[in-house]
Amino acid sequence: MKKGIAASNGYAIGQVFIKEDKEISIVERVIEDLEEEKNRLQSAIESSKDQLTKIKEKAERELGSEKAAVFESHIMLLEDPEFTGAVAMNIESSKINAEKALSDVIEMYMGIFAAMEDEYMRERAADIKDVGNRVLSNLAGTVENALEDLNENTVIVAHDLTPSDTAGLDRSKVIGFITNIGGRTSHSAIMARTLEIPAVLGLNDITESVKNGDIVIVDGYQGIVLINPDESTISNYRQKKIDYDKEKEELKKLINVATVTKAGKHVEVSGNIGKAEDIYQVLENGGDGVGLFRTEFLYMDRNDMPSEEEQFESYKYVAEKTEGKPVVIRTLDIGGDKKLPYLPLPNEMNPFLGYRAIRLCLDRKDIFKIQLRALLRASAFGNIKIMFPMIASLEEFLDAKKILKECMDELKREGKDFNEELEVGIMVEIPSAAIYADELAKHVDFFSIGTNDLIQYTLAADRMNEKISYLYNPKHPAVLRLIKMTIDAAHKEGKWCGMCGEAAGDEDMIPILVKYDLDEFSMSATSILKAKQIIMNN
Amino acid sequence: MKKGIAASNGYAIGQVFIKEDKEISIVERVIEDLEEEKNRLQSAIESSKDQLTKIKEKAERELGSEKAAVFESHIMLLEDPEFTGAVAMNIESSKINAEKALSDVIEMYMGIFAAMEDEYMRERAADIKDVGNRVLSNLAGTVENALEDLNENTVIVAHDLTPSDTAGLDRSKVIGFITNIGGRTSHSAIMARTLEIPAVLGLNDITESVKNGDIVIVDGYQGIVLINPDESTISNYRQKKIDYDKEKEELKKLINVATVTKAGKHVEVSGNIGKAEDIYQVLENGGDGVGLFRTEFLYMDRNDMPSEEEQFESYKYVAEKTEGKPVVIRTLDIGGDKKLPYLPLPNEMNPFLGYRAIRLCLDRKDIFKIQLRALLRASAFGNIKIMFPMIASLEEFLDAKKILKECMDELKREGKDFNEELEVGIMVEIPSAAIYADELAKHVDFFSIGTNDLIQYTLAADRMNEKISYLYNPKHPAVLRLIKMTIDAAHKEGKWCGMCGEAAGDEDMIPILVKYDLDEFSMSATSILKAKQIIMNN
Repeated sequence: MKKGIAASNGYAIGQVFIKEDKEISIVERVIEDLEEEKNRLQSAIESSKDQLTKIKEKAERELGSEKAAVFESHIMLLEDPEFTGAVAMNIESSKINAEKALSDVIEMYMGIFAAMEDEYMRERAADIKDVGNRVLSNLAGTVENALEDLNENTVIVAHDLTPSDTAGLDRSKVIGFITNIGGRTSHSAIMARTLEIPAVLGLNDITESVKNGDIVIVDGYQGIVLINPDESTISNYRQKKIDYDKEKEELKKLINVATVTKAGKHVEVSGNIGKAEDIYQVLENGGDGVGLFRTEFLYMDRNDMPSEEEQFESYKYVAEKTEGKPVVIRTLDIGGDKKLPYLPLPNEMNPFLGYRAIRLCLDRKDIFKIQLRALLRASAFGNIKIMFPMIASLEEFLDAKKILKECMDELKREGKDFNEELEVGIMVEIPSAAIYADELAKHVDFFSIGTNDLIQYTLAADRMNEKISYLYNPKHPAVLRLIKMTIDAAHKEGKWCGMCGEAAGDEDMIPILVKYDLDEFSMSATSILKAKQIIMNN
Repeated sequence: MKKGIAASNGYAIGQVFIKEDKEISIVERVIEDLEEEKNRLQSAIESSKDQLTKIKEKAERELGSEKAAVFESHIMLLEDPEFTGAVAMNIESSKINAEKALSDVIEMYMGIFAAMEDEYMRERAADIKDVGNRVLSNLAGTVENALEDLNENTVIVAHDLTPSDTAGLDRSKVIGFITNIGGRTSHSAIMARTLEIPAVLGLNDITESVKNGDIVIVDGYQGIVLINPDESTISNYRQKKIDYDKEKEELKKLINVATVTKAGKHVEVSGNIGKAEDIYQVLENGGDGVGLFRTEFLYMDRNDMPSEEEQFESYKYVAEKTEGKPVVIRTLDIGGDKKLPYLPLPNEMNPFLGYRAIRLCLDRKDIFKIQLRALLRASAFGNIKIMFPMIASLEEFLDAKKILKECMDELKREGKDFNEELEVGIMVEIPSAAIYADELAKHVDFFSIGTNDLIQYTLAADRMNEKISYLYNPKHPAVLRLIKMTIDAAHKEGKWCGMCGEAAGDEDMIPILVKYDLDEFSMSATSILKAKQIIMNN
């Protein structure tokens, strides 16, 4: 038995398929016809772009736009004239084949990033390698997906899974995956939960411990993997899996049921969304509305700022589809680790403690007002609420409200409709906001607790940093106190308090949050039904 | 009148000297005698090292070891065979003069760092440029310090001041400085306070607004600069300066006076130190002991870990010199932005939220135990107290105590003396520790509030990041609440609570801290007397 990190719930009993990390070897050749060679390069780049566009579309359909964004950045690299120009120039000046010219440029790029030894930068190096390998395969005419043509009941075993790997997974064949590295908030963990496939990560050496064809049990609840188990263990787990599948069917019955706690309190269970289209998954899973609409995705993977009109259409779409259910829209949370190609930002030593979200919006009123005007106009078509992220002080909230008021006055003068009574609240995700929530509660219409950030700031522990992951604990007594203080402060002023961080969908946390009298739970669409069930039992 | 950031108190009325940033132009020459050229290079490097060693010694004497450390890193670059080897190889292979060969290598190094556009990395690029320019000057035989041969009563005006600039300042001539960039916690601000020279920073374009010979008034209290003021303003400020100097004399009378508040409470006013020798400045300024001995400097600017014996000697030195006064020694706070050449650490996306201080020590028990054994042995020679940094949870404190207990048992078996009753406390610098200080207070012997980190985590604002410096506010109501909660929690359990962050020496904060019933204030030696006076008036 191997113990790892329980990254995605469920049970799988299947056959091992080990995903090898292939290395491509490059032979240098002297080229006579340079033009033809550059044409070869260009056509391999075009093929790569076509493939990536298809992968991206598949990912958008199956995984949602948020997870598909990475492929857009791959495509953008292939459209970057600095990158492709460097390869063409290398063919020209060294009179070498496209493979060698490309691999030189990739190595140079990667060398620069690898030398930095900065985790964030290294990730970019991995992206470049990924894209480069794809173009090389196209030059060789040997594009293949190692994860195609799998048998049924396959458990993928890998050192790590890249975005391309997971987007390409055939869900009718793959029933689980287990990897050497990664934690609960890693890319592959989030993918596994989105795909509803059990996964155990961070097993260190699982690729060395099994071979192709081995039978493994993946227990995504306990975070364990059993290798070639005996018959009684297998039948034991078969039963667990049957029970689990049955429970899933049971949950479906809750879709149209109102969520009432044992104490008789009616709470809202809503969904977090990244793009307007994501609203369908929330409604299909019985969501009472949207507790967090992350508007960053409207701004990402494009070359200019989205116009007021574009944003308005997007917000209006969600407002209409939800038919009067509440839709909490968070204003732009960009900066820090999230960058926009058309908005140059300073590089920072500690981006999580830096110039981002409301701090950037208050500084860049020009950008902020476009979004606020679009939000206000959309509020005429449904139950939109505006939420400001990263509020650390009352002054920031009042400044943001003042700008909102300016937008309201403008719209009135222009004769454009909006809901003058729309609620305006804040994310409580910075410790200071929770600590003096009693003061803030006098001014806001609602709170929504963002546990992901709140935990990392309260414990001074970057949640992406695996070296200190032991500290990132939603049930740390200090975190629990801040949550309770925030809810109590809201209620004292007659306001409501929700939660839109990971903890709102955490099965261990929900009973505590019910006890604390939380009014709204917002989470990824796939967690809604289970959360409803737990809330109703508490 | 120009308004900037009040970085160092006091008044100066003097003549402007503008420090120009000189550019060195390089001419390429073909070289016949390569050996001679390499000798020229080597001798310029040796001269540079000699100069830097002298600057470093002067800085150690006048500014303390902490501020001198940067020059050690400059010397280390010149001793790095990879750097010097690259230059020599460039002379050899391109048959060019040392100036060109060196400037190529510097440009390459800087290009790599500049490309990263990471603030932390860019700083390293500036260091490389600084050192490179020094060697180039030595090759040209034109080493000069632009800030030598100044007239009396000079006010330096600069875009920014480098460590070399400030270390080279002649304090008998320079009476103030004003710069375009920098904030209260920038390098130049700390230097100004250490030198006790009034300074106003962050004036944006002061280098464009004055010319050499202009008369300026630097008001380090209000953070303003008056350019060519009229006679009545000058005589007004002359009087202010006389009063200020008189007050400084008054303060000296407090050196041997016990600090008692108006309410009759006796508090301790102690010093923060970086190296054992710094204890003299604390005692000369009437410090009641040491509230924070930062032990990092024992580990920095060397090529191996300091042995138990070396550390023991250093701690014993301070314990003896303080003659029974309390000496709070903080265990190693390395990691994050502070690195050691002989201890490779992962590069992190958010070092302030990363693997550092107690997190690293609990993980690297081998390193931790050497320090704890040295501390325990030194406790036989004075009033040493041990303090653990970056405690986020009770478990961490209990784990650290367990390791300390192991060391005690070992020393007992070895028959070595130590104070079995020595106090063991924690820094309260992570919000969680303040929020559940009531629980922690049951286990620790004392708290010391580290406001610098506590503020930045509570407000999620990197204090080094000027884009968001408006958020970094010690008097934010949430920060004040955490401070009060911590002090109250300590007292409830009969423990004492100190403060060793910048706020403990802040004239506006001290009255609040007296009201909150803080027991110990620890600060830089030069702030002690003023703090004593304010405490006695509150």
